[in-house]
Amino acid sequence: MQTLWDDRYALRTNSMKGSAIRELLKITQMPDIISFAGGMPAPEIFPVEEFKEACMRVLDLQGPEALQYGTTEGYLPLREMITRHTGQYGIKVTADNIMITSGSQQALDLLGRIFINPGDRILVESPTYLGALQAWNAYNAQYVTVPSDENGIQVDKLEMALRSGPKFMYILPNFQNPSGGTMPLENRKKLVELADRYGVPIIEDDPYGQLRFEGKHLPTLEYLDDQLHANNGSYHGNVIYLSTFSKILAPGIRLAWVIATPEIIQKLVMAKQGADLHTSTFNQMIAFEVGRKGFIDEHIKRINSVYKERRDIMLEELEKNMPEGVSWTKPLGGLFLWVTLPEKCNSKDLLVKAVQKKVAFVPGTPFYANQGGHNTMRLNFSNAKPDMIRIGITRLAEAIKETIC
Amino acid sequence: MQTLWDDRYALRTNSMKGSAIRELLKITQMPDIISFAGGMPAPEIFPVEEFKEACMRVLDLQGPEALQYGTTEGYLPLREMITRHTGQYGIKVTADNIMITSGSQQALDLLGRIFINPGDRILVESPTYLGALQAWNAYNAQYVTVPSDENGIQVDKLEMALRSGPKFMYILPNFQNPSGGTMPLENRKKLVELADRYGVPIIEDDPYGQLRFEGKHLPTLEYLDDQLHANNGSYHGNVIYLSTFSKILAPGIRLAWVIATPEIIQKLVMAKQGADLHTSTFNQMIAFEVGRKGFIDEHIKRINSVYKERRDIMLEELEKNMPEGVSWTKPLGGLFLWVTLPEKCNSKDLLVKAVQKKVAFVPGTPFYANQGGHNTMRLNFSNAKPDMIRIGITRLAEAIKETIC
Repeated sequence: MQTLWDDRYALRTNSMKGSAIRELLKITQMPDIISFAGGMPAPEIFPVEEFKEACMRVLDLQGPEALQYGTTEGYLPLREMITRHTGQYGIKVTADNIMITSGSQQALDLLGRIFINPGDRILVESPTYLGALQAWNAYNAQYVTVPSDENGIQVDKLEMALRSGPKFMYILPNFQNPSGGTMPLENRKKLVELADRYGVPIIEDDPYGQLRFEGKHLPTLEYLDDQLHANNGSYHGNVIYLSTFSKILAPGIRLAWVIATPEIIQKLVMAKQGADLHTSTFNQMIAFEVGRKGFIDEHIKRINSVYKERRDIMLEELEKNMPEGVSWTKPLGGLFLWVTLPEKCNSKDLLVKAVQKKVAFVPGTPFYANQGGHNTMRLNFSNAKPDMIRIGITRLAEAIKETIC
Repeated sequence: MQTLWDDRYALRTNSMKGSAIRELLKITQMPDIISFAGGMPAPEIFPVEEFKEACMRVLDLQGPEALQYGTTEGYLPLREMITRHTGQYGIKVTADNIMITSGSQQALDLLGRIFINPGDRILVESPTYLGALQAWNAYNAQYVTVPSDENGIQVDKLEMALRSGPKFMYILPNFQNPSGGTMPLENRKKLVELADRYGVPIIEDDPYGQLRFEGKHLPTLEYLDDQLHANNGSYHGNVIYLSTFSKILAPGIRLAWVIATPEIIQKLVMAKQGADLHTSTFNQMIAFEVGRKGFIDEHIKRINSVYKERRDIMLEELEKNMPEGVSWTKPLGGLFLWVTLPEKCNSKDLLVKAVQKKVAFVPGTPFYANQGGHNTMRLNFSNAKPDMIRIGITRLAEAIKETIC
C-alpha cells in the first residue's frame, strides 16, 4: 500500500540491515532445533525465587517510587552497589562515574552518538561483537581491524593499526564474543601502553569477565591504565568500561552500566535523555534488592559451575565427532567458542544443511567489520542442556561431513 | 583531568543541551518544594497491588521466559492486547502494526533515526512537546512552526507551513503537552485533508487521549485519515500513532508503543536492534498480566476522577489568586495547563522568585522550536495533592505579584 511515508526514509536507513543473529533467533525459536546460535544464558538457573522476593519487597516498601519516573543517570543505590561490585575487580570509582543503561547495547549506541562522526575510523578486533558494529554503523563509522585469536587481539599487529589514527579502540579482553579468546596479562599491559603512546582511548566491553571457569581473574584494561597513569589506583579515564547484569543476573530486565569520567557521563546522560529518558526504575530497584546482600557473587559461582560443565561437554563432543581440518577455541569462561572449518568451506552454506539436521549456529562473517571469516562459526554453550549439546554437536559434525567443502 | 577522550566528542554533542525539564526535576526533588514542573502521574494511585499479583503470576508461571532475552518487536500477547485496547478508540490494526518501545521517548528517537536527514524540516506546533525537539535535535532537524492554542494547532495557519515542504508533521491533538489544548473535530478533519492534499505524513502523539475528564472522546487523526482513504476502516498508514502505558499504568516500567505500517515497523525494529536490542521482557509480561482482564479501562476511570478534581482545584485557585493580565487554558483532560503572563514578564526570571517561595513550574521557552513563549509557563496538576495545589498556586500568585513585570 502506498503511504505518504514511502521514500521519506533517512539516508542512513539504507545501511540498516537485519542482523544475521536476528534471523537466526527466529530459527532458534522453532521447538525441535538445538540452537547454539543465540547468546542466551541458561534460563533454568535464573534466580526466579530471588526476583519474587525482591518484587514483593520493592512494591511493599517503595511501590509508588518504583513505578514513577526516575533520573536519567540511574537509581543511586544501584550505582553505588555497582561501585562495590566492580571494586572487587580493582575498578575504583564512585557513583558519579556510572550511568545505568537499558542493556549494554544502549551503552554502545550512546557512545556512538556522542563520539562518532560519519567516516570516523574505529579500531576493532577481527572478529568482534556484531552488536557494536550494528550500533556504530548507524553513525556511519568506518573500521580498522586487527586480527584476534585465542589470546584476544594480536597486540604485535596493533601498532600499525594505531598509526592510522582511529578515534578509539573497542576491545573485549575476556572470553571474547564471538571467539572465546582471552588476553594474557602481558598483552593487556602492552595494549594499554601502546594506546597511551599513540593517544588512542579504549572502550573495554566486559560482559563476561566474571564468568571465569578456571585460572585467576586478570586485571581489566581499565585497572592497568590506572596503574600506568597514577599510583593511587583511582580511575584515570582513558578507558571507558562496560558491563551488564544480563549475564550475571538476567537479560530480560535490560540493565547494564557504563563507567567513564563524570564529564563523559554527563554527555551520555544528555544523549540518553533524548533516547529513552531513563531506564526502568522498577527493574533497577529489583536488581538492587536482589543484589544488595551479596547474592550476585554467590549466583556467579552457580552460573560458572553450570557453564563450565557445558563447555567441557561441548569440547569433548567436538573432539569426539569433528572431522580432520576442523579446529576450535578452548575458552576459559564466557558463553562462546569459535570453530574454524577448512578454508574451502563456507559456514553460511553449512548452516542450511545444519538446520535441515535441526541444529543451528551463527556463521562467522557478520562478526567481521571489513569482510572475512567465511569458514568460521560461533557456538554458544550456555543455553543448551548437556544432552542437547551432545546431540547437537553430533548433528553438526554430520552436517560438516556431508557438506562437500 | 586530561584524558584521551577529551576533544573526541562528535560534532552533534555540541548541540546537546541539558533540558530545562531535567534541571527542574532536580528542584522538584527538594522535599519542601511544591512542584508543578514535572509531568509525573499521581504516585499514590499507582496500582501497586495489581503489580504485585502480576509479578507473582508471571514469575510463577513464566519465570525463565520473563527473565530471558525477547524479540525486538515486543511481547506478542502485549501487542495483541494493545490492538484490542486501541480498537476501542477506532484504531483497527493487528500486532504487525505495533512495536513496543522503552517509553514514547524512544519511539520519537527511533522515528528520528529512520526519517530525519540533517536539515530536514519538521512541522511542529508552537509550543510543542520538548522531548520531541530533544530527540530530533540529535538528528539535526530544522523546524517549521504553526501556533497552537486551546484548540490545538491553528489549522487556518497550517496551509502556509505545509507549502514549505516539511518531511512530516508532529501533532498532539488531545490535552497537548504543554498547552493542554484539544483539537475540535472539524479542525482534525481539516488537518487530515490538508496533510493529504500537500502530501505530508503525520506523527500523532497521543499519550493523554484517554485521560478525558469531560465531553466525548474525539476521533484520532489516525482514524480520520483511514476514513478519508478507505471505507472499510482498516489502517491506511499515513498517520504514525504513538501512545504509552506511562500515563494509564505507570511510567517506571518504561513501556510505550508505535503504530505504523509493517514496512515502517520493520525499519523501526532494525533501528531498535542497534539502540537497545529489545524492551524488558519482564516488564512487558507484567503489563500484559496487569491489563489482560480489562483492568486498565477501570484504572483510567480512577485516574480521571483524581486528575479532574486536581484540575478543578487548580483552575479555581488560579481564578481566585492570579492578578489581572494573567490568563490560562482550561484543559478537558491530561496533566497540564498553560499560563500566559503579561507580555513584559519573563517566566524564567519569575522561576527564581517562585523557587524562593518553594513552588516550581516549567518556563515556556523550551517548548518553542524556533524561539518564543518568554511570558508563558506550564503547570502540571496531576502530581500534587489538592492541598498542595492550593498552597502552591497561592505562592505562585504571590511570586507573580511581587515580580515587577
